[in-house]
Amino acid sequence: MTQRVAVIGAGSFGTALAQVLADKGCLVDIYARREDQVREINENHTNSRYLPDVTLHEGIRASSDLQAVLNGTPYVLIVMPSSAFRETVQLMRPYLDPHAFVAHATKGFDVETGQRMTQIMEEELSEHDVKKFAVVTGPSHAEELSRRIPTTIVVASRARATAEAFQDLLMTSYLRLYTNPDVVGTELGGTLKNIIALGVGFSDGLGFGDNAKAALMTRGLTEISRLGMHLGAAQLTFGGLAGVGDLIATCTSKHSRNWRAGYALGQGKSLDQVLNEMGMVVEGVRATKGAYNIARQTGVDMPITTAIYQVLFEGKAPKAAVEELMGRRRIHEMEEVAEAIRLDWQD
Amino acid sequence: MTQRVAVIGAGSFGTALAQVLADKGCLVDIYARREDQVREINENHTNSRYLPDVTLHEGIRASSDLQAVLNGTPYVLIVMPSSAFRETVQLMRPYLDPHAFVAHATKGFDVETGQRMTQIMEEELSEHDVKKFAVVTGPSHAEELSRRIPTTIVVASRARATAEAFQDLLMTSYLRLYTNPDVVGTELGGTLKNIIALGVGFSDGLGFGDNAKAALMTRGLTEISRLGMHLGAAQLTFGGLAGVGDLIATCTSKHSRNWRAGYALGQGKSLDQVLNEMGMVVEGVRATKGAYNIARQTGVDMPITTAIYQVLFEGKAPKAAVEELMGRRRIHEMEEVAEAIRLDWQD
Repeated sequence: MTQRVAVIGAGSFGTALAQVLADKGCLVDIYARREDQVREINENHTNSRYLPDVTLHEGIRASSDLQAVLNGTPYVLIVMPSSAFRETVQLMRPYLDPHAFVAHATKGFDVETGQRMTQIMEEELSEHDVKKFAVVTGPSHAEELSRRIPTTIVVASRARATAEAFQDLLMTSYLRLYTNPDVVGTELGGTLKNIIALGVGFSDGLGFGDNAKAALMTRGLTEISRLGMHLGAAQLTFGGLAGVGDLIATCTSKHSRNWRAGYALGQGKSLDQVLNEMGMVVEGVRATKGAYNIARQTGVDMPITTAIYQVLFEGKAPKAAVEELMGRRRIHEMEEVAEAIRLDWQD
Repeated sequence: MTQRVAVIGAGSFGTALAQVLADKGCLVDIYARREDQVREINENHTNSRYLPDVTLHEGIRASSDLQAVLNGTPYVLIVMPSSAFRETVQLMRPYLDPHAFVAHATKGFDVETGQRMTQIMEEELSEHDVKKFAVVTGPSHAEELSRRIPTTIVVASRARATAEAFQDLLMTSYLRLYTNPDVVGTELGGTLKNIIALGVGFSDGLGFGDNAKAALMTRGLTEISRLGMHLGAAQLTFGGLAGVGDLIATCTSKHSRNWRAGYALGQGKSLDQVLNEMGMVVEGVRATKGAYNIARQTGVDMPITTAIYQVLFEGKAPKAAVEELMGRRRIHEMEEVAEAIRLDWQD
């Protein structure tokens, strides 16, 4: 029997996941808001704005009619920018099959409330069983996945059955999925690493080297793990694909929009200029605002996020920010996560 | 008072550290075995084979006379290839000041015994106080450090006083040192990440993408942390500069010899051919042999190290090795470090 799947959102990653599913023989309906994009996908089998030079599987059907896309579909993947997430979920509500498995692949916070995307799903789809919700994330540039270049990602859910349902659905010879019960950590890893990617972009754009970049990524990983654990995540998740894996893919690849935005800022461009030139959503900018607010409310120390916030929203020079971070006074590497220390000095 | 420091070994990193110390006004004696190299450093103030295009500080004095270099010197930094480490320490023994602080910056095992470098120091310098020993390591390409590009590293010792002595000695505006009491983890991080760099080089040389690279680095970090913890290291160290930081710097930089060697192997060259062309020590090759033996003896599961061993020493094709690693059957991300799981499925 041919499996029906709905993909909500026809950006780069949504389209890449649709391509994977069509490759596996699924009947894929993809929702796009703009009629010209719907027509391009259905008639030309391309999505040139988001995945230039990729020919899409002919089995992928696009539509701007959410009811038609969702009607009775047992698997739903939401891949929207975080800014449009709540509104989209509200629009989905009347048409969603009550037994459907629903995963999202959105890396971001609700800026107003600080909520994660599954929290928005729980709120806006309150009659749906939360054990049917999942998040799919990890080191997965859409440009590579859509070209069938080997990729591994994570699917997290409260329920093993749900995680394994999406694992079975998406697993192919070139896409491997690992399951993880830590929904909070898996969502936060994907969201918070974009902040660090901006900072690493500053450093690279300013002409600092690979030593500084590695140091910034290491300190950044420590900082986002600290916030994550404070919010209930498992530390181990930040050492896995959704944490360090995605951080590496984002900070060291030319495909990364967040890194590229940071790079342009490091080279002296303004935020407005950078966002206009990119023409795509840069989730790290919103994530910085969200994480900065959460850190202030909870009292978690986030020096890198704070410095990036000051560059983005308070006019601080990127050079001053990076130099300040390199020159911070903390000198004992382990004192930051004191509870995890097993060893101590012998003198 | 001008501080006297001896640097034993005039390769890339030894020379870069000598440059830092001379910048700080220390009187630096650097030991090189070859007379032509001694002459080049003293007369031309260059070390062109190891640090091309870098002009050395005129205060650095080179010598092939170990006694003259060591005589009464209160700070000693050993920066030799692991293959020459034991012999060098044996030669140093009669001339070493009994009160000297001695750090090494060598990333490797003794292949025959599986010993770490501080274990060799303890054995061969048995009358020296072990609390005076330290290791200096981290994400620090010599090419950048010698050009004064911002860099952060770790110094680990059993004794806080020793770690802080080297921290004070080496800290400058462009080089920051963090202290750590976990000598075992700090040494192993620097040694084991070179193995993963070879594997990431295979993947890049074969034309796989950034998604695969990030996945291999993440799984590799898990694997070397597992071996490290089995050998007494603190997990936290692998999440810090000596672990993930150095892994990132090594796997993502054109400066890395280990990555470059793996890349050439991935493109189809033989190990002999690669090592001949590099003309410098590739520590990852020896480290793979050492770690493979330790893993076998201790029963620790190291699939990536095993695959790299098979490519290097048993004629396995890099493509088969990487594909096998991407296709491993383990599917639950957290099962590998079971004791660290705080969360579990709710169904």
